[in-house]
Amino acid sequence: MVDGPVTGKVLPASSAPQMGAAPDEAINQVAKLIAQAKNPVFLLGLMASQTENSAALHRLLETSHIPVTSTYQAAGAVNQDNFSRFAGRVGLFNNQAGDRLLQLADLVICIGYSPVEYEPAMWNSGNATLVHIDVLPAYEERNYTPDVELVGDIAGTLNKLAQNIDHRLVLSPQAAEILHDRQHQRELLDRRGAQLNQFALHPLRIVRAMQDIVNSDVTLTVDMGSFHIWIARYLYSFRARQVMISNGQQTMGVALPWAIGAWLVNPQRKVVSVSGDGGFLQSSMELETAVRLKANILHLIWVDNGYNMVAIQEEKKYQRLSGVEFGPMDFKAYAESFGAKGFAVESADALEPTLRAAMDVDGPAVVAIPVDYRDNPLLMGQLHLSQIL
Amino acid sequence: MVDGPVTGKVLPASSAPQMGAAPDEAINQVAKLIAQAKNPVFLLGLMASQTENSAALHRLLETSHIPVTSTYQAAGAVNQDNFSRFAGRVGLFNNQAGDRLLQLADLVICIGYSPVEYEPAMWNSGNATLVHIDVLPAYEERNYTPDVELVGDIAGTLNKLAQNIDHRLVLSPQAAEILHDRQHQRELLDRRGAQLNQFALHPLRIVRAMQDIVNSDVTLTVDMGSFHIWIARYLYSFRARQVMISNGQQTMGVALPWAIGAWLVNPQRKVVSVSGDGGFLQSSMELETAVRLKANILHLIWVDNGYNMVAIQEEKKYQRLSGVEFGPMDFKAYAESFGAKGFAVESADALEPTLRAAMDVDGPAVVAIPVDYRDNPLLMGQLHLSQIL
Amino acid sequence: MVDGPVTGKVLPASSAPQMGAAPDEAINQVAKLIAQAKNPVFLLGLMASQTENSAALHRLLETSHIPVTSTYQAAGAVNQDNFSRFAGRVGLFNNQAGDRLLQLADLVICIGYSPVEYEPAMWNSGNATLVHIDVLPAYEERNYTPDVELVGDIAGTLNKLAQNIDHRLVLSPQAAEILHDRQHQRELLDRRGAQLNQFALHPLRIVRAMQDIVNSDVTLTVDMGSFHIWIARYLYSFRARQVMISNGQQTMGVALPWAIGAWLVNPQRKVVSVSGDGGFLQSSMELETAVRLKANILHLIWVDNGYNMVAIQEEKKYQRLSGVEFGPMDFKAYAESFGAKGFAVESADALEPTLRAAMDVDGPAVVAIPVDYRDNPLLMGQLHLSQIL
Amino acid sequence: MVDGPVTGKVLPASSAPQMGAAPDEAINQVAKLIAQAKNPVFLLGLMASQTENSAALHRLLETSHIPVTSTYQAAGAVNQDNFSRFAGRVGLFNNQAGDRLLQLADLVICIGYSPVEYEPAMWNSGNATLVHIDVLPAYEERNYTPDVELVGDIAGTLNKLAQNIDHRLVLSPQAAEILHDRQHQRELLDRRGAQLNQFALHPLRIVRAMQDIVNSDVTLTVDMGSFHIWIARYLYSFRARQVMISNGQQTMGVALPWAIGAWLVNPQRKVVSVSGDGGFLQSSMELETAVRLKANILHLIWVDNGYNMVAIQEEKKYQRLSGVEFGPMDFKAYAESFGAKGFAVESADALEPTLRAAMDVDGPAVVAIPVDYRDNPLLMGQLHLSQIL
Repeated sequence: MVDGPVTGKVLPASSAPQMGAAPDEAINQVAKLIAQAKNPVFLLGLMASQTENSAALHRLLETSHIPVTSTYQAAGAVNQDNFSRFAGRVGLFNNQAGDRLLQLADLVICIGYSPVEYEPAMWNSGNATLVHIDVLPAYEERNYTPDVELVGDIAGTLNKLAQNIDHRLVLSPQAAEILHDRQHQRELLDRRGAQLNQFALHPLRIVRAMQDIVNSDVTLTVDMGSFHIWIARYLYSFRARQVMISNGQQTMGVALPWAIGAWLVNPQRKVVSVSGDGGFLQSSMELETAVRLKANILHLIWVDNGYNMVAIQEEKKYQRLSGVEFGPMDFKAYAESFGAKGFAVESADALEPTLRAAMDVDGPAVVAIPVDYRDNPLLMGQLHLSQIL
Repeated sequence: MVDGPVTGKVLPASSAPQMGAAPDEAINQVAKLIAQAKNPVFLLGLMASQTENSAALHRLLETSHIPVTSTYQAAGAVNQDNFSRFAGRVGLFNNQAGDRLLQLADLVICIGYSPVEYEPAMWNSGNATLVHIDVLPAYEERNYTPDVELVGDIAGTLNKLAQNIDHRLVLSPQAAEILHDRQHQRELLDRRGAQLNQFALHPLRIVRAMQDIVNSDVTLTVDMGSFHIWIARYLYSFRARQVMISNGQQTMGVALPWAIGAWLVNPQRKVVSVSGDGGFLQSSMELETAVRLKANILHLIWVDNGYNMVAIQEEKKYQRLSGVEFGPMDFKAYAESFGAKGFAVESADALEPTLRAAMDVDGPAVVAIPVDYRDNPLLMGQLHLSQIL
Repeated sequence: MVDGPVTGKVLPASSAPQMGAAPDEAINQVAKLIAQAKNPVFLLGLMASQTENSAALHRLLETSHIPVTSTYQAAGAVNQDNFSRFAGRVGLFNNQAGDRLLQLADLVICIGYSPVEYEPAMWNSGNATLVHIDVLPAYEERNYTPDVELVGDIAGTLNKLAQNIDHRLVLSPQAAEILHDRQHQRELLDRRGAQLNQFALHPLRIVRAMQDIVNSDVTLTVDMGSFHIWIARYLYSFRARQVMISNGQQTMGVALPWAIGAWLVNPQRKVVSVSGDGGFLQSSMELETAVRLKANILHLIWVDNGYNMVAIQEEKKYQRLSGVEFGPMDFKAYAESFGAKGFAVESADALEPTLRAAMDVDGPAVVAIPVDYRDNPLLMGQLHLSQIL
Repeated sequence: MVDGPVTGKVLPASSAPQMGAAPDEAINQVAKLIAQAKNPVFLLGLMASQTENSAALHRLLETSHIPVTSTYQAAGAVNQDNFSRFAGRVGLFNNQAGDRLLQLADLVICIGYSPVEYEPAMWNSGNATLVHIDVLPAYEERNYTPDVELVGDIAGTLNKLAQNIDHRLVLSPQAAEILHDRQHQRELLDRRGAQLNQFALHPLRIVRAMQDIVNSDVTLTVDMGSFHIWIARYLYSFRARQVMISNGQQTMGVALPWAIGAWLVNPQRKVVSVSGDGGFLQSSMELETAVRLKANILHLIWVDNGYNMVAIQEEKKYQRLSGVEFGPMDFKAYAESFGAKGFAVESADALEPTLRAAMDVDGPAVVAIPVDYRDNPLLMGQLHLSQIL
């Protein structure tokens, strides 16, 4: 067999054309709206977490002191310096600190946001003035009809907007209270998450432990399942595009293939992927690919022997369960049958050391982490971490 | 029967968000390319004929003296003041003055153009630097990969570009010759078109006569057929969006329904529509609509008792004809059976007076004009009007 | 241009393969069901009107004396000898003599019937034993689940079934009353339909007059519209496949193209087509085809200057009308503009002579017949012709 | 959680309607064609292997002594008593004993066959009279236009045909030679297949060993891959519908899910499934299902660490390979990670004892069998087993 010549001209990779910023008069109009607002809030979407846009956003946050929330897809867009004004992420259930800011707001400024990321009917009361900043005009729907649109290069537009803002916002007492409480919950999780000693493990204990290994040098890819909500809400990130996570139309089984793809783009950067046991088995034959490529990937499986999120919805809709229990599987042996390194967390105390050992592996590794989903119903209500921690 | 209440909230009509112009540095880059070019040319597309864009274009043409050609869809974008540098429209067959300018060019600047309007493989030799000015990034294909893109509001971008141009182009001898010859052909048609005395009528005689009635106060809608090419090439227009004409994917039978729609939008403005006899019968029941609405429409039918353009393609592909001959029809009686006013041109001399009489009708009128398509094969070659006139 | 050689092998036309009759034991089972039934009834569908099947059906009707009804598509399947036991056609509204037989029945035998012809939920009470005789197994749905199916060649199956029937049915008093009343209405129409003297004309007057010209030598094609119901119910036919009529999914505008197709199949046989004025205009450019081919077709237009059947449904659903009125048109002039012969009925008395004159034309002719649809609402109720005639 | 009431009427399960046999005269016509033919042959398709049809076929073979071949889908239709006249299966490559019979034939009788099973252009020379026996008329295409069709119940038609045959065929010398040689190859494989001692194993050695475990009490499901061809040609079966195998449009990964389905239908019957290593990994998470259900399934994996059939086609079309090598995998450990029993064949001698041990497992088991595909190119030519054995 012979390698044939490459035929067919490959189109040249031209650099993406740069757009201009939005028109000056429209930017000035938004600056005035900001100056007049009592409770303005930024809602960040996927495009806000592009590297250039995120850098411009940091300057705008610094200049304006306006509080900020984001969809799951904008994870990492807010940097550590502005963290005290970040109310965390919103999505799926309308019950987060960010949701309370949106309800309170008289001005909502969406940056790089698309309605598919978090359904507008969930968060838009219609009482606030709505501003849309993006490269495209708003995809209008009944609950998303912006009053002003700044269409153009996002970074350019944000930079010009920052220049037009002449004083920092003094938070209203209500907004300050929301952000303060959010900050309090973060500290709770940070200080006491590691003390949740039940086994199988509490989701917050696992999130807390993951925070230690997902530092800025690591990329994280997130599958779909109940664990997805715990991570989307409580795992923070300060690097734009550090976290690959979806919401609108995500498929189970994407995390491991995404991880391989992310590693191929930048083989110097370790990738952590995370899924449930159900989602893992839907594409886990790709471990063969990871082993063959010697990809530097650590895959975490939250193991509950079931399709937990499907079960929650079956109970809600049909008041009975069908086809959601499976296993048990020996995921350590499974991983090793492919030639990957396998780990299983076998006690609460073993969680953190096992994760550290698995991070030290150079090449594909898999860790099975038993999880206890008993507190999942709290996710749908006004969960305050003090209820748990 | 009772008019029920209107239910359902209607979304408010917000004004379209304004984009900013393209970034200054990119505009400067294009200005430099223009300063260096020996044979630059503008290629206008559909978006260039929007009113604001067309006005900005006129200033740019005035400032730069760069020659210009356009697709059929940009009809009317070039005004009378710049007419001497307009090489006419291009499309379908690569054999027009505009095509020769494009072949000669070392810099092609596409304004508001989409590849669907005129296939790039037909006109892009790949030898010229390619600039794309539009509201959207280029839809790249193998033969359309711009070197520079100015993405943003077209009028804003053209205005900034015009400000950056500091001297007018001196035409190269070759470009001057192409434009001069084009101008010569226009004069030929103007002076001598009315003397083509054969009956049925020569297409150029009909185009020449139509020019007299399609003044700036009139909107023209054009169906698909052989007559479409004669009109697209030789009927000029100085008002943007005066002519509704397609190219990429046009359907037979659209002209009369288009005309009714255009009249409904602005009932003060007379509409002329034109089709072949085959296309006319595909939607001519809409005469009933025109009569019922008392729409001020004049429909011209070029009558040759056949599907001439289909016949041309059948001969080319199969060397025989099938199913392309029909009629004759009495279109005057046909129109009158609907209650419209009907006319039939019955001699060469009767053409102009009949058209004038039909234009004077207030309400729907139809004129049947026998046409002799014997010279159609010339359309595919390097037709020079001196061959005919 | 040259006629090229015919290339590509044309598949040989083989005669359609013959199926065998249904199995003997299944046929015997149906014969027993017939012997036991008090009120059996045949429901004929499209396949019953194939020539061979229709001939076998005549023998079965003669042998069994079982009453019979049919869908519109089986028009002509029952011959004159068995006409006294034919309750007429059923479809659309469940209010015909045939519907009353089906309600009364303890045994329904469907022959060559498909559920698309007349929705089973409309006629199947579920109280009768259901037999399906066809070339295909039943397309089962909730309201059409036969107890016995005779799958195989229909003529062969009917012949075997006829041989197994040993005595003729004595009609129950209720069945006899239904058939007697139906016969009475037919006679009413026959005797007195011609005396309906209003102008525009009553639908029954037109049906009555059409009956005189649609003799066995003529094929009739029927468009969709209000006139369709009057014809489907009251115009009888004794020749299988004499009438082309649909029900399940018919499109407006089919009658004239169908007529041209039917005439091409057998140019010796005159074709009458009939449509409303709305349906006519949707495909009336085909008059050009008819004239060019010199097709021997008479097209009747029931003229009411509206989309009457659409109007009925708009009123029912929305209690108001929109976009259903049009015209008037001069259909005589319209036809003549194509070179066809045109007629317009201008008084009640002129109906029959005008139809006769138009039938005498050799080639395409069109007759416009003004119709008064004031009695249409009666079609939806238990219309008895004595209410009108 | 509560089991809700079952709502919605379930349609009653009626027994499938029985068709009659084909018409007597058509059957007689085929009987005459048989009486006149020198080299008749039966080609069996999927429907021939339905239980009733297969039983009728056995009688017809006994009565007529006509040689027979079949598509892969008809596996098991020919019983042991008629085995000497069975030329084996045909499909994919036109180079089998059955193909030679079809080339020689002056009469080909297709029973329950559809063109999708084995493309007619591959086997139909057009020289033989063609008969089609099925429940449906032939789906005609350019190379499949039967001269006679017997449409009706297949078993009923075959029984009537058998009654009309009055003497047994005397094989022509050519047909006898083809069948004799085929028989010779079977004996070769039977006697000497077990002596192929290379390791990884020769495909014929594996087929030979599988023949011992796939007795009449076992169902076999076959995935797609190179092994598929070796099995389709050389593994025989005497029970209709014993083997689930496709050809026209088969998907990789079906064997294990098919096996679970087949076992659920009849849990008393052991199921053996077989796939390549590539196909196995595409659906092998279903081992979890098999373990949870305690399904009595033995899955065999032919292991070559590659997509062999894809590689063959890549080489043929592109003269190079891409993306077809993977592994190695430890399939024994893999199976055991699910809780199934795992086996790996580790020497040529171990093959048969390992298969026997795995068959003795009550519940899911997996056997990895290394295969050496070096002789695959012979499959495309006129392979005679004496070249190998």
